[in-house]
Amino acid sequence: MNDQQLHELLQAVRDEKLSVDDAAGQLQRDGFDDLGFARIDTNREERCGFPEVILAEGKTPEQVVAIAGRLEQRSGRCLITRLDDEQRSLVRRTFPSAEVDPLAGTAYLGLVPEMTTGHVLVVTAGTSDLPIAREAETTARVMGAKVDLVADVGVAGIHRLRAIEPYVAEADAVVVVAGMEGALPSVVGGLVPCPVIAVPTSRGYGANLGGVAALLSMINSCVANVAVVNIDAGFCGGYIAALIATRSGQPRT
Amino acid sequence: MNDQQLHELLQAVRDEKLSVDDAAGQLQRDGFDDLGFARIDTNREERCGFPEVILAEGKTPEQVVAIAGRLEQRSGRCLITRLDDEQRSLVRRTFPSAEVDPLAGTAYLGLVPEMTTGHVLVVTAGTSDLPIAREAETTARVMGAKVDLVADVGVAGIHRLRAIEPYVAEADAVVVVAGMEGALPSVVGGLVPCPVIAVPTSRGYGANLGGVAALLSMINSCVANVAVVNIDAGFCGGYIAALIATRSGQPRT
Amino acid sequence: MNDQQLHELLQAVRDEKLSVDDAAGQLQRDGFDDLGFARIDTNREERCGFPEVILAEGKTPEQVVAIAGRLEQRSGRCLITRLDDEQRSLVRRTFPSAEVDPLAGTAYLGLVPEMTTGHVLVVTAGTSDLPIAREAETTARVMGAKVDLVADVGVAGIHRLRAIEPYVAEADAVVVVAGMEGALPSVVGGLVPCPVIAVPTSRGYGANLGGVAALLSMINSCVANVAVVNIDAGFCGGYIAALIATRSGQPRT
Amino acid sequence: MNDQQLHELLQAVRDEKLSVDDAAGQLQRDGFDDLGFARIDTNREERCGFPEVILAEGKTPEQVVAIAGRLEQRSGRCLITRLDDEQRSLVRRTFPSAEVDPLAGTAYLGLVPEMTTGHVLVVTAGTSDLPIAREAETTARVMGAKVDLVADVGVAGIHRLRAIEPYVAEADAVVVVAGMEGALPSVVGGLVPCPVIAVPTSRGYGANLGGVAALLSMINSCVANVAVVNIDAGFCGGYIAALIATRSGQPRT
Amino acid sequence: MNDQQLHELLQAVRDEKLSVDDAAGQLQRDGFDDLGFARIDTNREERCGFPEVILAEGKTPEQVVAIAGRLEQRSGRCLITRLDDEQRSLVRRTFPSAEVDPLAGTAYLGLVPEMTTGHVLVVTAGTSDLPIAREAETTARVMGAKVDLVADVGVAGIHRLRAIEPYVAEADAVVVVAGMEGALPSVVGGLVPCPVIAVPTSRGYGANLGGVAALLSMINSCVANVAVVNIDAGFCGGYIAALIATRSGQPRT
Amino acid sequence: MNDQQLHELLQAVRDEKLSVDDAAGQLQRDGFDDLGFARIDTNREERCGFPEVILAEGKTPEQVVAIAGRLEQRSGRCLITRLDDEQRSLVRRTFPSAEVDPLAGTAYLGLVPEMTTGHVLVVTAGTSDLPIAREAETTARVMGAKVDLVADVGVAGIHRLRAIEPYVAEADAVVVVAGMEGALPSVVGGLVPCPVIAVPTSRGYGANLGGVAALLSMINSCVANVAVVNIDAGFCGGYIAALIATRSGQPRT
Amino acid sequence: MNDQQLHELLQAVRDEKLSVDDAAGQLQRDGFDDLGFARIDTNREERCGFPEVILAEGKTPEQVVAIAGRLEQRSGRCLITRLDDEQRSLVRRTFPSAEVDPLAGTAYLGLVPEMTTGHVLVVTAGTSDLPIAREAETTARVMGAKVDLVADVGVAGIHRLRAIEPYVAEADAVVVVAGMEGALPSVVGGLVPCPVIAVPTSRGYGANLGGVAALLSMINSCVANVAVVNIDAGFCGGYIAALIATRSGQPRT
Amino acid sequence: MNDQQLHELLQAVRDEKLSVDDAAGQLQRDGFDDLGFARIDTNREERCGFPEVILAEGKTPEQVVAIAGRLEQRSGRCLITRLDDEQRSLVRRTFPSAEVDPLAGTAYLGLVPEMTTGHVLVVTAGTSDLPIAREAETTARVMGAKVDLVADVGVAGIHRLRAIEPYVAEADAVVVVAGMEGALPSVVGGLVPCPVIAVPTSRGYGANLGGVAALLSMINSCVANVAVVNIDAGFCGGYIAALIATRSGQPRT
Repeated sequence: MNDQQLHELLQAVRDEKLSVDDAAGQLQRDGFDDLGFARIDTNREERCGFPEVILAEGKTPEQVVAIAGRLEQRSGRCLITRLDDEQRSLVRRTFPSAEVDPLAGTAYLGLVPEMTTGHVLVVTAGTSDLPIAREAETTARVMGAKVDLVADVGVAGIHRLRAIEPYVAEADAVVVVAGMEGALPSVVGGLVPCPVIAVPTSRGYGANLGGVAALLSMINSCVANVAVVNIDAGFCGGYIAALIATRSGQPRT
Repeated sequence: MNDQQLHELLQAVRDEKLSVDDAAGQLQRDGFDDLGFARIDTNREERCGFPEVILAEGKTPEQVVAIAGRLEQRSGRCLITRLDDEQRSLVRRTFPSAEVDPLAGTAYLGLVPEMTTGHVLVVTAGTSDLPIAREAETTARVMGAKVDLVADVGVAGIHRLRAIEPYVAEADAVVVVAGMEGALPSVVGGLVPCPVIAVPTSRGYGANLGGVAALLSMINSCVANVAVVNIDAGFCGGYIAALIATRSGQPRT
Repeated sequence: MNDQQLHELLQAVRDEKLSVDDAAGQLQRDGFDDLGFARIDTNREERCGFPEVILAEGKTPEQVVAIAGRLEQRSGRCLITRLDDEQRSLVRRTFPSAEVDPLAGTAYLGLVPEMTTGHVLVVTAGTSDLPIAREAETTARVMGAKVDLVADVGVAGIHRLRAIEPYVAEADAVVVVAGMEGALPSVVGGLVPCPVIAVPTSRGYGANLGGVAALLSMINSCVANVAVVNIDAGFCGGYIAALIATRSGQPRT
Repeated sequence: MNDQQLHELLQAVRDEKLSVDDAAGQLQRDGFDDLGFARIDTNREERCGFPEVILAEGKTPEQVVAIAGRLEQRSGRCLITRLDDEQRSLVRRTFPSAEVDPLAGTAYLGLVPEMTTGHVLVVTAGTSDLPIAREAETTARVMGAKVDLVADVGVAGIHRLRAIEPYVAEADAVVVVAGMEGALPSVVGGLVPCPVIAVPTSRGYGANLGGVAALLSMINSCVANVAVVNIDAGFCGGYIAALIATRSGQPRT
Repeated sequence: MNDQQLHELLQAVRDEKLSVDDAAGQLQRDGFDDLGFARIDTNREERCGFPEVILAEGKTPEQVVAIAGRLEQRSGRCLITRLDDEQRSLVRRTFPSAEVDPLAGTAYLGLVPEMTTGHVLVVTAGTSDLPIAREAETTARVMGAKVDLVADVGVAGIHRLRAIEPYVAEADAVVVVAGMEGALPSVVGGLVPCPVIAVPTSRGYGANLGGVAALLSMINSCVANVAVVNIDAGFCGGYIAALIATRSGQPRT
Repeated sequence: MNDQQLHELLQAVRDEKLSVDDAAGQLQRDGFDDLGFARIDTNREERCGFPEVILAEGKTPEQVVAIAGRLEQRSGRCLITRLDDEQRSLVRRTFPSAEVDPLAGTAYLGLVPEMTTGHVLVVTAGTSDLPIAREAETTARVMGAKVDLVADVGVAGIHRLRAIEPYVAEADAVVVVAGMEGALPSVVGGLVPCPVIAVPTSRGYGANLGGVAALLSMINSCVANVAVVNIDAGFCGGYIAALIATRSGQPRT
Repeated sequence: MNDQQLHELLQAVRDEKLSVDDAAGQLQRDGFDDLGFARIDTNREERCGFPEVILAEGKTPEQVVAIAGRLEQRSGRCLITRLDDEQRSLVRRTFPSAEVDPLAGTAYLGLVPEMTTGHVLVVTAGTSDLPIAREAETTARVMGAKVDLVADVGVAGIHRLRAIEPYVAEADAVVVVAGMEGALPSVVGGLVPCPVIAVPTSRGYGANLGGVAALLSMINSCVANVAVVNIDAGFCGGYIAALIATRSGQPRT
Repeated sequence: MNDQQLHELLQAVRDEKLSVDDAAGQLQRDGFDDLGFARIDTNREERCGFPEVILAEGKTPEQVVAIAGRLEQRSGRCLITRLDDEQRSLVRRTFPSAEVDPLAGTAYLGLVPEMTTGHVLVVTAGTSDLPIAREAETTARVMGAKVDLVADVGVAGIHRLRAIEPYVAEADAVVVVAGMEGALPSVVGGLVPCPVIAVPTSRGYGANLGGVAALLSMINSCVANVAVVNIDAGFCGGYIAALIATRSGQPRT
């Protein structure tokens, strides 16, 4: 409940259009739907600009579709991430019109906004980082950003970075997805004038410690415009990049 | 053997009602049953107020039911936790009257005490923390506490915490079950006047390190009334909360 | 602002005793004093039963006394912990009547409640754990509990634990302070019928990892009534124990 | 050298206005000044929008002022961070007009841009996080953003967060500075519609592991709009927030 | 090659009973059999008192039996540890007279020495530590020690430790096998006058970190007579205990 | 593009044999083939002396053969490492002439250079380190080095190290592959006059932490000629050793 | 109180030579002296063969001498370890006849037993490990073992190990003190027929992690006769070695 | 003692030019000088090509000069590393002709070989990595390599790497010294055809974990020609690079 809504409610109390009990109830229960196993945040979109997103991992397929149904009903759209096969299958059956991406593990219900404002560039260090990059791409796209994806420009052949040059000038935010030593965000960060969201991946072996080595590398970046999200968190990377891009973006010719 | 029992035994020696050898034997072997693979603590209830609880993990199904049988025989009740499918199946066949909860992985033999004293509130940050919360709930309930469970009030939508308000005033202890960043216990701790037992869960991915991230977060809580138990240790959370609640609890009107 | 206060405020709005703007202001700014560098939580005592406690570490001496003065003014009492020499000196000069304990690093302003309800037992594994134990003891005492402290009953000579026997029966909570391998809380936990709050200390050397070894040991306790707080957090240990004890405690004869 | 500059250079070669050797030299040595111990990145401002910033830590005072002098000469301005006392003293003597902040450990040479576009909100969990927050504030300010700083709104008294409400609507980015359990960014993230840059601090003790506990907490945030920078990296937090804000910001009335 | 053998070889050279080339060859290739994939240490028994023991883990079943065959041929006996099902099956088929223990994962070829000297006591904290304890028991037994095994005397019911009293006086070494918090070796160490070899196990869950928590606890023991071997290394525990016991042991009446 | 090629290109521009746009394009896109999911580094061989090597892990079988086909076409040869069964099967079907090693998980397309220059010695501590050692051996061999492999000379029987003596004098680089405590590289390092590349393996159990214990041991080697690569990175060990050997090597008689 | 003493006490009760209350008191308070800040274990020598040893670290100088005085009074001897300068100075003044070793940080009060039985060999990897080795040497010596110390035989020059050959045959236990990669215990373990107690030291730099790297190396030793104590725990190493040696040792000719 | 020397010794025995006892003695005591606190490896140069190098850290100044004097006497030269002020001062006084570098913490006694063969390139990421780079430079130079040092080419401005281009073609080995995220070795590795020895430094702050973050980054390098040494181990980096360079190097035109 924002400031204006609060004043209106209190005015309604004063004007005796609203009873004291009802007002107290509204002040106390405002903002969520209770499904028993889940408490849906129904004013997330109003507060944060995008409805609650469902992390499928750790939920039963039935819980996933129940929450998705309620969110779509409330907001007209719903994004689900990290779907396993069983969950994805039930989502498809329940919402035949959903846009489902098995590689990225995502499903989207509702209309994708027209891409009129804000550009996001997603870059991967290696071929095996693609699923995480796709999660970022899908997320940013359904949030209304224009997204370009450039794969496999890792630092072992630094000249391959020239592949991102056509996109640098107009990108409002760059998502860099990298495993192993996680060096790419630092190198990209030094080449672009916008924020870089670094997504460490668990790709690699041995002392990569499930992605912790890449995470540490990115957190210690010597470049100032790099911020980091969780290991394999393509969703978060895409989300923040889209927030930045749609905020900055203006239609371009 | 408590102080009074010790005096009685020594008096019996002096009165020549008990031989020196027998007294020495009693002093040395007092307090456990030896099953070979297990040594059941037969005076735990006397010492600690509740009989020994069986952690099924790492035991064969046969060992589980053998220990359970002996404990029930001794104490009239027995709680088993972290049962896998095979163990649970043998428990059901062996003790048809047992109250078994597959989601929580628990089984209880014997009567549940009437809920007359002490209130425990169990809160979860997310939907996927429910199994651990159920383990806590069952444990506290069979120990004699009244238990309420409120799910999915994670900090991403802090207003959802209003869902716990009806229970705060009368709760004697709160169990907060949370994975990922484990922030919920600190927030709840600042809202309630009773102890909060924080149960970190292994829910999450990437840098959650199997729950260690949530555990560290809870241990470093800036709120003074938060104490922490092991990752996924719903049982311990419920146990301590029930100890507190049944100690403090008086019937309320 | 609790439920009753909220109704009263709304009733005042309806009764036109309170303007809508003033009501909105009260709903928005309720509950803290702003000192610029600190925002004092003025309804902590109402919410949690004890006023905000000052962690001196990381604050300037001037900040410490400014916050302490305001808290004492509001609540009539104030506890400060982890005072270094310079801070303690300024506290003494500013509040000559404060009860200051250099060993524990604490200072207390105001009256200590009479000890009528609730018993806390503080136990240490070694002599060098005493400063942390004293912090726990002071905290529990100023919160209104009766406290006994038994030192140096580490597990190397397990028979020394008999020194705690006189206190076990009436203790409502036990605080166990231990460094090195941190085994003592598990042993004590198996001997008492009440909750045990384990406080790991940084005492020890080599692979104790600044107390992390003791912390891990306590978190993995095989005894169900042990919950853990931060390394060297004597304050938290005493705080939770006092919460439990004053809740359970009834005057004893 | 950007695309247009490259074409111009090649055209000059074709037009025989530039020799082949000179063109090759320019293509190879373009973009840095060599001081022997440092290689100043002279086209950082062109590439990234802000000149190179000097991390004083690990450099001799003489190296710091030599690099600062060259950068100011090149770009007309220069920001230095993490100055110790000896370095700061030489900076003051060498650049009497520098704006020096001992608490934040920063110095700035040159004019601060007028604050016409973009708002950054800096929030701290505790009083002891202030130095890091000041580093963030100064950085964002000299990069051209309007900055507000709200201190000590930690999650132990969640209602104190109302202190940030006046700034939420117009903030383009929020920097949240927190130590201990690092829960604040998640809570703030759920309340604002813009990106949150989380800065973990080394404040706290025991199992905070020098800030690693707070870092892990933030990386595992259940809120999608939180990205994280290094422990105590107020500079990076402010830098990224300013990048976002100055990109999105439009003059407001 | 020991000192005496070296003198004899050199004397044979001087006496022209051995050519220089042959002597050089013996000095260079003395002491192992080369199977290509393995290089069997053929004078381990002479040097260390017991022939090489085969760690089956990581070897193919064929490699295991090939090495076992060669060792038995050389030494008349052979111990194999950590056998999986497939390896154990081939060992049984190849060496029908082998003494195989599926629980402990061991196989022994050859005669077990008569138990005339030295006593080893193996103690476990819990029922689920039994497989590791059995590995220790078998190892110590085939090395010639008398072994007693007492299970499930964990610290949660410290009085159960009385079950080891009958064995303490005559034990030359104690092996203590414990998971979870790993407190038992410290407690036992304070009760016995001989060395305690602590074997941490991976039993437990959550923050036990696969046994690292128990390992750290044991390494930080406050008791001086505790030394530690690898997690789940029942073999090493039994081996060292037997070395100590057979060294100290004298036939007892 | 090297210095000479750059001059030639610029000269062609001046001579109007090459348009400015084409030159700019070449300068920007020089050096990789874009397969969409992968960006093949086509001048790696020119820059680094050996074509790009494919790490199969994390790629689909189809991606592996597509990249391999392109690399073979470009360079006439191609090495693939860490092939799983499914990938290896498709490689075999697609490139029937490939030299495939299931134990090492490698495949090689093209001719192996004649072994005329440079000797590499590969040594393993145990039998179970063989697959990693084979990966190193194959890599060094296809890069043109002569390779000898000596297995199972671990430090438990230090005299077995005599098995490497025949190779020490002529080795230009030694690869030491070891798990568990990782002590072998230090011992070998003290015996040879050439660089030792240490490859820690994940072999072992318990506190080996998946090879991190061996890695730490090698990184802390007290011997100056030991450098370390990733856990189980036989490929890197063989690669660097071959670089050293083919650089130093001269044909030997 | 041992078995025989227990029978005698009970017999005294039966014979009415001892009152029930006195007997209960003895059974409850047997075995320690209470100094307030310390609880001295007065039957440690009877139970464990050597009186309690004082770890000075973390105690005030006054506490150290008070405990030492009481122990010497009770047992006629007392060993103190890890004395800092201030503590050592007070020990010297209070006990002028104490044998004090500043390098090892030890002090010993009382007579050293004549060396008639049992041999301990102490070996160090480097010169900088000497203080820890001296602590081990002193401890073993005052416990009645003959001790030889051989310094600086690290694995970089494995032939230097020949310096220990004269002592191997008669050693009953070997203490190996090593930092950096901690490889020496494994090598020594393969050369001797008795137990090896490995003492990791914090010597080294960088990734030695304060001795944790050496500790891990030793715990993962591929040699079966190696057991490990805490980092820098020369005292424990010497203590266990002396226990083994004095148990096994017989005067040798 | 090499193969030829062994044959000569045995031949001398056969020819009765050497007694059996003397031959046995030579075989047993060959190769070190015993200073009591140190055992100097006198045939290191013969075995490994360079005499033992003294790590001053952890030794007393007197021990350092005693070892240095003996080594210089034996080999005519001696390198000392990691000298603190006190040690360096005594070295200067004792060996006035020594070449001492306070920045690098090194001292060298004896003649530096003429630089005729082999080129080493030392590269640093930042200005604050210079001391470590200097240690590498000095080490490689006194071992006979030609060394070039290029400072401050970190990845934040990747074009600065062009500063190394003049040296790439003729370098036989590259030492890359970098802290923070440690990304530089991967980037350089992709640009050069020779081995890269990566030296992580402890430079940085926060989550750099004293250099462990950079170490992990380098160990996980996606480039095959990168091997890693200990944190801040400039000496090892220079040593291995010189081994490679002097082996490969031939005078170039």
